[in-house]
Amino acid sequence: MDKIERKQVVVESFNTDFRRCLNYETLGKDLLNCAEQHANKRGFGVDDITPKNHAWVLSRLTIEMQEMPRMFVKLEISTWVESLYRLFTNRNFEIKEIGGNVIGYARSIWAMIDRDTRQPIELEKLYFEKFHDHILPDYPCPIQPQTRLRPLKDVTPCSEHYIVASDIDYNGHVNSIKYIQFLCDIFSLDYQRQHHLKRVEIAYINESVFGETLSFYKKEIEVNTYQVEIRNTPTNTVVRGLLCFD
Amino acid sequence: MDKIERKQVVVESFNTDFRRCLNYETLGKDLLNCAEQHANKRGFGVDDITPKNHAWVLSRLTIEMQEMPRMFVKLEISTWVESLYRLFTNRNFEIKEIGGNVIGYARSIWAMIDRDTRQPIELEKLYFEKFHDHILPDYPCPIQPQTRLRPLKDVTPCSEHYIVASDIDYNGHVNSIKYIQFLCDIFSLDYQRQHHLKRVEIAYINESVFGETLSFYKKEIEVNTYQVEIRNTPTNTVVRGLLCFD
Repeated sequence: MDKIERKQVVVESFNTDFRRCLNYETLGKDLLNCAEQHANKRGFGVDDITPKNHAWVLSRLTIEMQEMPRMFVKLEISTWVESLYRLFTNRNFEIKEIGGNVIGYARSIWAMIDRDTRQPIELEKLYFEKFHDHILPDYPCPIQPQTRLRPLKDVTPCSEHYIVASDIDYNGHVNSIKYIQFLCDIFSLDYQRQHHLKRVEIAYINESVFGETLSFYKKEIEVNTYQVEIRNTPTNTVVRGLLCFD
Repeated sequence: MDKIERKQVVVESFNTDFRRCLNYETLGKDLLNCAEQHANKRGFGVDDITPKNHAWVLSRLTIEMQEMPRMFVKLEISTWVESLYRLFTNRNFEIKEIGGNVIGYARSIWAMIDRDTRQPIELEKLYFEKFHDHILPDYPCPIQPQTRLRPLKDVTPCSEHYIVASDIDYNGHVNSIKYIQFLCDIFSLDYQRQHHLKRVEIAYINESVFGETLSFYKKEIEVNTYQVEIRNTPTNTVVRGLLCFD
């Protein structure tokens, strides 16, 4: 079996933003759907690991887009496993316009947990047999790995979101894709009209649940590059991120 | 050409809710995408009407689902034009599980406006030629037409949403699909765990824009049936709706 899984998607008008370009939330879903399809076909998807009471947890996600495709453009998303470690696996993505150029890449890091104890399981030990035919270390993913983000200090919240039912996934936590939208929405419509969001980094630190209020923090660390945080209490960080605009 | 347009979609995991069932927001997008495909192929889609400076405006949408399909279920959505009037056209939908039963229907009413004046245009007069081969008055859509909803009186807001950039579409207004999610989110996770949302009615009254705060109002008019409103000022109603839970 090919080590790379490919999935074609169309940029549908109701998944586009105020510019009629694909939004990051939908792109994030498309990437994760492609990852799911890759894992399902190769024996380490949801249906394979749920009977062992295991679950995949997304730990880091970085997406870098030279441009965002416009309405009705057809895309091919490719994904492959770059490496497998004791507790983590790295999965990369390429985003290409069909009949055109590669327009972006993404990197992700995943852990697997026991659904009862919520503790990470020994991925390399328990799943090496499943993975070893599917690791592709040398396929190019020419974007920088995720930045090591230190906690933000001395910041005050710039906005808030009260968690609602549609934010919540099957595990009872805020859906990991929703945070992509929350991070983009820290920035005003005017700012986003003037600046293309080129790179998004997300580090998932803690879970948040229905009824909590999320507070958003940002700090411009270089021109048009912002470190951001989402907290569910003044001291508990849920997500840390970096957004780089052109 | 067949008067009915069909589109197949898969319920993808990141479009499911806390029950792992398709969410209403994604279903709404799927319906409107199918409608767009129907219109594009028959000469009255976006590409045909934009050069005339016309735009479709969704005026009413009613969706009724016996059940919500679970993750990975394959659906076939069908849509057809039921009728054409002076200023409006009625478009219906059927939602079927592939290899299974019809699980829901939807009804919608559309107007066409001039993009500059924002006034409705004479749909029957200007577009009858385009439509007349594609009207299908007798195909069954066995759900009640939309209720005539009177304004709610003497109500206080039960929650709020500050409009963010990702809510906004190409026309600079809140995306019509977002309101479906806002209406569902008036209800708590606990309530939605206990009650299946069987029927959603939305009447689009006014536009709202970035920077406004939407206030949500609800009134239980029968057991588990709620009339709801979204306003962008205490007296200006943006959306009126009816939500019927089992």
